[in-house]
Amino acid sequence: MAKVRELLVGVDMGGTSLRALVVDERNQILSLEKTPTQVSRKPSALIKEIGAVVEKAITTAGLRRQQVRAVSIGAPGAVDPERGVVHHAPNLGWKDVPLARELKALVKIPVVVENDVHVGLIGEHALGAGKGTSELLGIFIGTGIGGGIISEDRLFGGSSGGAGEIGHMVLLVDGPLCSCGHRGCAEALSSRSAMERDVRAAVKSGAESAALQIMEKRGKTRMTSSVIHAALKKKDPVMIEVIQRAEYYLGILAANVVNLLDPERVVIGGGIVERLGEDFVAPIRRTAYEYFFRREDADRVKIVGGTLGDNAGALGAVVFARQKLGR
Amino acid sequence: MAKVRELLVGVDMGGTSLRALVVDERNQILSLEKTPTQVSRKPSALIKEIGAVVEKAITTAGLRRQQVRAVSIGAPGAVDPERGVVHHAPNLGWKDVPLARELKALVKIPVVVENDVHVGLIGEHALGAGKGTSELLGIFIGTGIGGGIISEDRLFGGSSGGAGEIGHMVLLVDGPLCSCGHRGCAEALSSRSAMERDVRAAVKSGAESAALQIMEKRGKTRMTSSVIHAALKKKDPVMIEVIQRAEYYLGILAANVVNLLDPERVVIGGGIVERLGEDFVAPIRRTAYEYFFRREDADRVKIVGGTLGDNAGALGAVVFARQKLGR
Repeated sequence: MAKVRELLVGVDMGGTSLRALVVDERNQILSLEKTPTQVSRKPSALIKEIGAVVEKAITTAGLRRQQVRAVSIGAPGAVDPERGVVHHAPNLGWKDVPLARELKALVKIPVVVENDVHVGLIGEHALGAGKGTSELLGIFIGTGIGGGIISEDRLFGGSSGGAGEIGHMVLLVDGPLCSCGHRGCAEALSSRSAMERDVRAAVKSGAESAALQIMEKRGKTRMTSSVIHAALKKKDPVMIEVIQRAEYYLGILAANVVNLLDPERVVIGGGIVERLGEDFVAPIRRTAYEYFFRREDADRVKIVGGTLGDNAGALGAVVFARQKLGR
Repeated sequence: MAKVRELLVGVDMGGTSLRALVVDERNQILSLEKTPTQVSRKPSALIKEIGAVVEKAITTAGLRRQQVRAVSIGAPGAVDPERGVVHHAPNLGWKDVPLARELKALVKIPVVVENDVHVGLIGEHALGAGKGTSELLGIFIGTGIGGGIISEDRLFGGSSGGAGEIGHMVLLVDGPLCSCGHRGCAEALSSRSAMERDVRAAVKSGAESAALQIMEKRGKTRMTSSVIHAALKKKDPVMIEVIQRAEYYLGILAANVVNLLDPERVVIGGGIVERLGEDFVAPIRRTAYEYFFRREDADRVKIVGGTLGDNAGALGAVVFARQKLGR
């Protein structure tokens, strides 16, 4: 039986689902609960939802809240981990939400908050594809592109905690418009949104693509990883061309950052990696190796897909909480 | 009178001149000697030349070699500071030259070696435009583009000491060919060589430019910073257009790296900055601020020209030697 306050709850506030894991001191998952993320609701309602899924995970694990040391949350957007505040999360419509304080008032357990991409990387570093490295780079592909840097086994924050913004690295000056207002960012070239834009443009100019039909059939409004996967399985030529282009830019992105930071390994993560696996990672690796400035890096720097899948964020949040609170 | 072994000699192996400074414990320059770099000579001849200029600087300072603790050299290319070996310096035609060992045999003083761009950044950080920061980024524009990262007041080396390779960050996929064999690297867009290529191309396609005439009149085979300066003073329209484009790409380069690393300050260095000063730095700053992902960084992250000029490398080499050998 676990001792009082050795257990932690990790929460990942994903764009599609809210996920809570109860994790023991050896990082074993004791329970997992999830619920769809209702982005449209206001902050207090979503925080109530988080409270409910956390309590459910604790109950499912056969525990009481007194046995839980802390709840640790990976939250999207600009986060202040010191104060537990989500400054700006455009996808949720949140601005300056004191998430830690409000959730603690509900669940009566201390709450820790970090950026979702950062905890995802911490998870892969401690328990997944980055295990055993001290210098690690993470590139996470979703609706946008997020990133993070581990140096000397810790998250590299820079001077104000903002380091790792890899998605807005410009790779193609005057290229396609990005959500940030600039042109040619990695996110505007290789994210799922960029792929969707390119498929729609191809169809509009007369090409035939299974991808949009699959979306419609499945009642999806966005081109999810499962839609991309299904279109590729049907050998949809538009989807193949679009994803090859996205992979090419991701390879150059990875090389740019390897040339600059000289890490031991690069982890490529996100739902699309989980779906497509090595089929997606191999072309990225091939281009990156071609673009390495130090040619010998191709023998040394591994480029690998994430292995924790959708649990990376929640598991990483737990590892982060231990670092923050002391073991 | 300085005590025995408190003094250091800093050497910068620049592309055009070899420079040696004798520096006291308060980083005051006691003497400065320089000689043109004769790149065509074989390693042993050039090392003899370094030995001669070092001994001359010691003599000029009224010292004996027994009073010098170490000679510290900023050398171009890929350097192994642990072993004092220059692995690969294409500009010198050097491959695996044991510079520290060979020079020590000549001057009978311990020799320390680091990369020239790295020591330039260390110099600006300790004594120049980067003073007072802990997280600093350096971009040095010359024939190529070099870079370096200071984090937590130390040079950030990455996993194998290779970090900082900023010149081969791709900014324009499929852009102009770079010396590294790829296309669209910062170096192929914004270095002095890139500017020279663009001026020559404009002239070849019929434009008139004072720049090439100035080169010829001065007997220069390459477009040096002084040629660029003179052409701009004559308001040469080709030179103005070419340098504006180079500055634009440098602004995006700076923003890319600020977005990724979140430093406190960026130092722009190199001969061209010394010549043109704020006229060159201001447009870079303007574009960088426009491309910052965290808009508030424009109030926080300063982009400044280097202040140590041609002494940055030799002074930084001295600071590096103190860090390495202990004060």
